[in-house]
Amino acid sequence: MKIRTLLRFIPVTLLLMCMSTVTFAQLSPSNLLDGRILNEQQYNKAIHIMAMLLIGFGFLMVFVRKYGRSALTATFLLVSTSLPIYYLIKSKGVTGIVETQIQMLILAEFAAASLLITAGAVLGRLKMPQYILLGILFVPFYMFNEWVVLGGGLGLIPAGAVVDTGGSIVIHAFGAIFGLGVALTMTTKQEFEKTIETDATSDRYSMLGSMILWVFWPSFCAALVTPEQMPHTVINVIFALCGSTLATYISSVGLRKKMSIADIANAALAGGVAIGSTCAVATHTMAIVIGIMAGGLSTLGFAVIQSYQQKWMKLIDTCGVTNLHGIPGLFGGLVAVPIVHGINMSGHMAGIGFTIVVAFTTGMITGKVLPLLGRKTEAYDDVDEFLEAAEE
Amino acid sequence: MKIRTLLRFIPVTLLLMCMSTVTFAQLSPSNLLDGRILNEQQYNKAIHIMAMLLIGFGFLMVFVRKYGRSALTATFLLVSTSLPIYYLIKSKGVTGIVETQIQMLILAEFAAASLLITAGAVLGRLKMPQYILLGILFVPFYMFNEWVVLGGGLGLIPAGAVVDTGGSIVIHAFGAIFGLGVALTMTTKQEFEKTIETDATSDRYSMLGSMILWVFWPSFCAALVTPEQMPHTVINVIFALCGSTLATYISSVGLRKKMSIADIANAALAGGVAIGSTCAVATHTMAIVIGIMAGGLSTLGFAVIQSYQQKWMKLIDTCGVTNLHGIPGLFGGLVAVPIVHGINMSGHMAGIGFTIVVAFTTGMITGKVLPLLGRKTEAYDDVDEFLEAAEE
Amino acid sequence: MKIRTLLRFIPVTLLLMCMSTVTFAQLSPSNLLDGRILNEQQYNKAIHIMAMLLIGFGFLMVFVRKYGRSALTATFLLVSTSLPIYYLIKSKGVTGIVETQIQMLILAEFAAASLLITAGAVLGRLKMPQYILLGILFVPFYMFNEWVVLGGGLGLIPAGAVVDTGGSIVIHAFGAIFGLGVALTMTTKQEFEKTIETDATSDRYSMLGSMILWVFWPSFCAALVTPEQMPHTVINVIFALCGSTLATYISSVGLRKKMSIADIANAALAGGVAIGSTCAVATHTMAIVIGIMAGGLSTLGFAVIQSYQQKWMKLIDTCGVTNLHGIPGLFGGLVAVPIVHGINMSGHMAGIGFTIVVAFTTGMITGKVLPLLGRKTEAYDDVDEFLEAAEE
Repeated sequence: MKIRTLLRFIPVTLLLMCMSTVTFAQLSPSNLLDGRILNEQQYNKAIHIMAMLLIGFGFLMVFVRKYGRSALTATFLLVSTSLPIYYLIKSKGVTGIVETQIQMLILAEFAAASLLITAGAVLGRLKMPQYILLGILFVPFYMFNEWVVLGGGLGLIPAGAVVDTGGSIVIHAFGAIFGLGVALTMTTKQEFEKTIETDATSDRYSMLGSMILWVFWPSFCAALVTPEQMPHTVINVIFALCGSTLATYISSVGLRKKMSIADIANAALAGGVAIGSTCAVATHTMAIVIGIMAGGLSTLGFAVIQSYQQKWMKLIDTCGVTNLHGIPGLFGGLVAVPIVHGINMSGHMAGIGFTIVVAFTTGMITGKVLPLLGRKTEAYDDVDEFLEAAEE
Repeated sequence: MKIRTLLRFIPVTLLLMCMSTVTFAQLSPSNLLDGRILNEQQYNKAIHIMAMLLIGFGFLMVFVRKYGRSALTATFLLVSTSLPIYYLIKSKGVTGIVETQIQMLILAEFAAASLLITAGAVLGRLKMPQYILLGILFVPFYMFNEWVVLGGGLGLIPAGAVVDTGGSIVIHAFGAIFGLGVALTMTTKQEFEKTIETDATSDRYSMLGSMILWVFWPSFCAALVTPEQMPHTVINVIFALCGSTLATYISSVGLRKKMSIADIANAALAGGVAIGSTCAVATHTMAIVIGIMAGGLSTLGFAVIQSYQQKWMKLIDTCGVTNLHGIPGLFGGLVAVPIVHGINMSGHMAGIGFTIVVAFTTGMITGKVLPLLGRKTEAYDDVDEFLEAAEE
Repeated sequence: MKIRTLLRFIPVTLLLMCMSTVTFAQLSPSNLLDGRILNEQQYNKAIHIMAMLLIGFGFLMVFVRKYGRSALTATFLLVSTSLPIYYLIKSKGVTGIVETQIQMLILAEFAAASLLITAGAVLGRLKMPQYILLGILFVPFYMFNEWVVLGGGLGLIPAGAVVDTGGSIVIHAFGAIFGLGVALTMTTKQEFEKTIETDATSDRYSMLGSMILWVFWPSFCAALVTPEQMPHTVINVIFALCGSTLATYISSVGLRKKMSIADIANAALAGGVAIGSTCAVATHTMAIVIGIMAGGLSTLGFAVIQSYQQKWMKLIDTCGVTNLHGIPGLFGGLVAVPIVHGINMSGHMAGIGFTIVVAFTTGMITGKVLPLLGRKTEAYDDVDEFLEAAEE
């Protein structure tokens, strides 16, 4: 009990300590008008991404019918923990050059997105303070990987070698594999046998989350591209999402006879995941093909592979992040090789490999640390943490 | 069965064929900075419209209580089918000059909006592959009408003669009348007698859709106006919506003694529909008057006319698109005549007439084609298409 | 009955009368390009705020489980009444200089936000026409206070003396205290004893509203700051919200043993309320500290103080606006004193005092006027006003 109470104060203390010494980035564009305009353009996309984080990821996870209050509260806590931590570390310049304030906000949101993906793997099996601790542990690991893979950190991979504009690799695959590492270490036998229940209302909430993600995904991928690249990037993302949505419907019916709404809500987004790496450079035709393939792959994961994976790896991946972010993320990273002219292939592949190793290892470590705060009594249920649920 | 399986692959194949030969528009504004800024401004509105398409139209249709999963999935499929098809045909320059990429995206979204209106008329009575086929058939007909009425196609109506900035005529009325054509041809006797059930939860979802549409409607109407016209247009749209919302409440209580939430969720938006044609040129006073009249008309439609219309025309219009988009759309087109100074009256009226004829005829044709894929077994119910619903 | 019928037409008549003589502001920036860009930037924030008004406030109030249709309809009516009335009075220049059209829209939205806060205090106990009348009465009182406190009206407080960029004082505290005044006058004994019921679905809807408010709050506070101040302001607001969200979780568990979702949905936003006054000038560290303190204070209000307050003041504050907007708003106003260098302390404090007095007095007056339209038969229930609810 003592430890838990103490741990509840960690995020706040940490934030305050960081903040007292922080030096913030100053925006000094050569052209001030241009700088101001760029700020506003990126700000709009930052708000779109914020909608994805809270409402998108949050409501997508409400599909667990008795765990809705918890899923939404966990989303609030994960975002509120990770955004300031990332921003403060980043603004100190630890991991390379310091960007404008809005750019740092967007990078912090990317980290939060990756964290939410991780949380999806163990959703319903952590207590609230464990979500907070997950956020505290996740962000530095994520930043380390981002720094090495994209920023040339440690001199392992040349900066710029890894093509990953929209984060197929460093955001989606990293989050999913980290989550697998956590789930692998933590899943208990009781949890393994407990059914995850849904109903018509939780399914419709889940579709709300899915649609929010779909709608704002172009802003996620185009948040940091140049204004010249924006239109092409945006159309690519939309086409990839259209492709995966259609492919998901076809695959879901093809593989299961009837559709599953879980496939639709999730795999429809796989095009957005997979187009991430190449969203700024693929042709529109390639974008739609990538989307179709990702949607098919992802649905195959949900409809067929997931049950085998769970038995084989002895873990439960609550939201199926393996199928939505893991496989499509890696697929998106790999298709950059044939698509991007003059790609530094060894560097790009090294980045993918490094991400897999770091994510899985640090995920496993995190999975060892989290149980120090105990275990959730009632998996997939609000009842042990919410007054209102206990009274129902 | 064979045909249906084949048909499922049509949209994908079609997209791939189109894409292989497409030449995309290049943005070459005289002033590059201006061009980039315009792109970003229009992009923000394009994302707002995307929220309207998926979340707005999607959740508005969730009012059918057992058909929520299907309504949302159908929305996904309709959007994913129509956006790329429109974009690809448009970008080939078939229907006149090629615009910037973001402008083409917005035009494609307009087509998707019109298609979703059509789908609202037959909602709950099509199987998923039929929604896809509906999208494939609808888009070319819609583009043909748009080209003739707004773009001077075939030389029938002078380009610019029809005043329809926000699409009262070519988007709303076209979609509604097309939908009536489909419903007229397809409604079966069993469907005619089956009750459409709602409940408190489906009603609240429906209000979510309605509010999303209300909030982003100004961006729909102002998406392609000049930056100088934007503020006036936006205020007009908001005033028209305020007018129709207040008028809907008053009319609903007046006509029914108690309010119907169906009136509120739908007719409150009639001001947005009706102000479409004249949103850039009406005065604010006119805007609010148009909104009030449209809200009253639309509520009258839902509360009184709809039941007569259904008996007389022997069709079910599931979402009442006649009352929300048909009548207010035509009304909005007609009020342009007294309002717009120097309007080419014969041209404008010819545009309205042409739209009615084309929409109704092509809707009837489409209604003859769709049943080739069979009939939905359980109208207004997820149960025959979704695993989860079958298990409930 | 006659009076009520008549009153229903008041808003419409009022609007029409106002509009017939209105002179609209003309945007004439020295630099036209700059003006157009500014318009678009502010427009985006105006739409974000609109989402907060309808979907944010609207759905936050859906937590009352049998009153969802009414809460959303009331939101529609309150917004549709207040926006045009504010805009029309403002555009006549009655309360000082006339701004650009988009700036007036944003100011009108601020008034609507304050009105929705007021409505939260008496939610479930007004009939629909009473919400409309509330809006009609509220706006002039709100404008009077805004004019005196911020605009130097009557020469009581020097213009610019009160620091309140994001409206902690004139929007949040004003709305909450006005609402208390209304509730104090109107709460009946039956209402006092009736339980306000929630359930899992209404709680999740409420969290949707809360998240929409959280996501777009930065645009609310930064809507009228200069482009140079925008990034700093935005990060401050986000940090304050992160702080209050974390503090709410910790306080809720600390004070109640288990969390209450009502705390999470509401108090998590207290950071946004409290940072309002100083959002443009506080350091990031101060922002997060203000957020943490506001979250703690607000949760203390919901968990402990509210039940005493209700007994002591003999009123029901349905949504707990005292705890979310009242206390945190005043707190935000007061912390400006130590934080803002060179603040005009007497002027600033006079502004806070004036706001409290005006809000409470005019709220009491309004609470005397509203019962002239009768009393709602079934408190917290759709059943006496909605057909659908009566049939359930």
